Amino acid sequence: MTRTVVASATKEIVIGFDQPFCVIGERINPTGRKKLAAEMVEGNFDTVRTDALAQVAAGATMLDVNAGVTAVNPNETEPPLLVQTLEIVQELVDVPLSIDSSVTAAIEAGLKVAKGRPLVNSVTGEEEKLEAILPLVKKYDVPVVAISNDESGISEDPEVRFAVAKKIVERAADYGIPAHDIVVDPLVMPIGAMGTAGQQVFQLLRRLREDLKVNTTCGLSNISFGLPHRHGINAAFIPMVIATGMTSAIMNPCRPQEMEAVRAANVLNGTDPNCQDWIMTYRDHKPVAAGSPAPAESAPASGSRRRGGREARRRSA
Amino acid sequence: MTRTVVASATKEIVIGFDQPFCVIGERINPTGRKKLAAEMVEGNFDTVRTDALAQVAAGATMLDVNAGVTAVNPNETEPPLLVQTLEIVQELVDVPLSIDSSVTAAIEAGLKVAKGRPLVNSVTGEEEKLEAILPLVKKYDVPVVAISNDESGISEDPEVRFAVAKKIVERAADYGIPAHDIVVDPLVMPIGAMGTAGQQVFQLLRRLREDLKVNTTCGLSNISFGLPHRHGINAAFIPMVIATGMTSAIMNPCRPQEMEAVRAANVLNGTDPNCQDWIMTYRDHKPVAAGSPAPAESAPASGSRRRGGREARRRSA
Repeated sequence: MTRTVVASATKEIVIGFDQPFCVIGERINPTGRKKLAAEMVEGNFDTVRTDALAQVAAGATMLDVNAGVTAVNPNETEPPLLVQTLEIVQELVDVPLSIDSSVTAAIEAGLKVAKGRPLVNSVTGEEEKLEAILPLVKKYDVPVVAISNDESGISEDPEVRFAVAKKIVERAADYGIPAHDIVVDPLVMPIGAMGTAGQQVFQLLRRLREDLKVNTTCGLSNISFGLPHRHGINAAFIPMVIATGMTSAIMNPCRPQEMEAVRAANVLNGTDPNCQDWIMTYRDHKPVAAGSPAPAESAPASGSRRRGGREARRRSA
Repeated sequence: MTRTVVASATKEIVIGFDQPFCVIGERINPTGRKKLAAEMVEGNFDTVRTDALAQVAAGATMLDVNAGVTAVNPNETEPPLLVQTLEIVQELVDVPLSIDSSVTAAIEAGLKVAKGRPLVNSVTGEEEKLEAILPLVKKYDVPVVAISNDESGISEDPEVRFAVAKKIVERAADYGIPAHDIVVDPLVMPIGAMGTAGQQVFQLLRRLREDLKVNTTCGLSNISFGLPHRHGINAAFIPMVIATGMTSAIMNPCRPQEMEAVRAANVLNGTDPNCQDWIMTYRDHKPVAAGSPAPAESAPASGSRRRGGREARRRSA
């Protein structure tokens, strides 16, 4: 059974087919968040702290940390900013972190300070990336997200994306990195632009699980880009990818509809033993009469910070 | 490609892997509805009419019709009552019907009056049932729901349930009934009582699709029996069964959360071309700020009666 182990200083999490879906909180990322970017440049980490606490409270299994605030000289500016952000976050919360950067020097700087066993986000099939990132992954003995694109970009052909994933797994093996430390992102296209995007991902996930035997992840909300009521699409996509073998996603855990879908899919996938997390979270949920509008999908109340089965299976490192 | 054709006097629907999920409205059934049973016994069909209209308005593809109001002498009382109910419903709405009875004489009486090509619900693997129902299915050239239990009851072993389904398909073939007219119900156990119930169903659905090449259905809400916030479990179960190959379900279409899951899963499964049904239904959906409770999952407003892609593909018989 494929097991990808990630850890903070005090918590170990296993990503795997027989584990609760790993929710990697995406919020600490200044990309497209001008206010957050401006704050981070000024050395103001208030929003970072707020987002870290809120995501863990909402049920995030891990947190992604990205400090890519500027395109100007990122090789010099991003490493210290990422280090500072990682240190602030790991001081505040006890979940494992994902070190997210397109700058190799920032990833290495992050690896030097991150406690436990962080996830590196990411390597691609590009030669330059492979040669820069895989030695770090080996040196620090950490798992890595492998994105299924290469020098030719993102292929619309799922066969090509599978081939890129396979190449990364094989190249990693050359460095002595086992397949269970590669978490493949098969790349999710917006379903509004490509009607086969869902079926492509489901087929890829089955092959990645059965043939490559790797764990998988994706930037979840990309599937609903451009559609109305995106949360409804996201909330159906989560159970579908879980049913077809996806084991983690980079997503916003502060969305109750999406997190409800994660918790329900865990129940149905047999990874919430005795439905403990579900029952603790939703035992006070108010039903409504058939035919009337469904209730406000309440942000789960008191039970929400108790993650039942998952917590019970964590062990101190 | 497996295609199960059902029809009313004026509408034809195809149940199939490449079709929108077929929602069979379950409400016209006095089982467990004392008030409805009492009304039907008295010849009052007001609730039947209301339920027929409401389910179609909410997006039901077909309606199940059951008139099993009494255990006293059903062989005599149920056939005329089922006939009357079917006639009232098919007068009122134009969707195909499912003739639902455990009384063979009632099924035959229903087949004599139902217009188009109704679905018979159901046969099981019991010898007596096979011999009573399959000749009717052949005579009237209609599809039939095949429930995977036999004289020994409902097995907890999915292998046994698969074997029962296979036996029914083979026995049907002996009568000249093709596999595409058998819609197998693999039987869904409550996940709260059996933690593997979900995984069992997903595996069975894959085998039923790949090995027996049949369409499938289930009594959907059984999965969440006994749990809090059942609609949340149901709404995640729908995308999971669709992703693993289920093509219809007997369910309550008047539940907005479940129907939203059906519509989103159709988008993601590629059976809502250009996301037309989704966009028409949810284009006015109000987003909420991240981190705040999701909106009341509104009963879809004006767009809800326009079933976009599905309607567009229907043809007059």
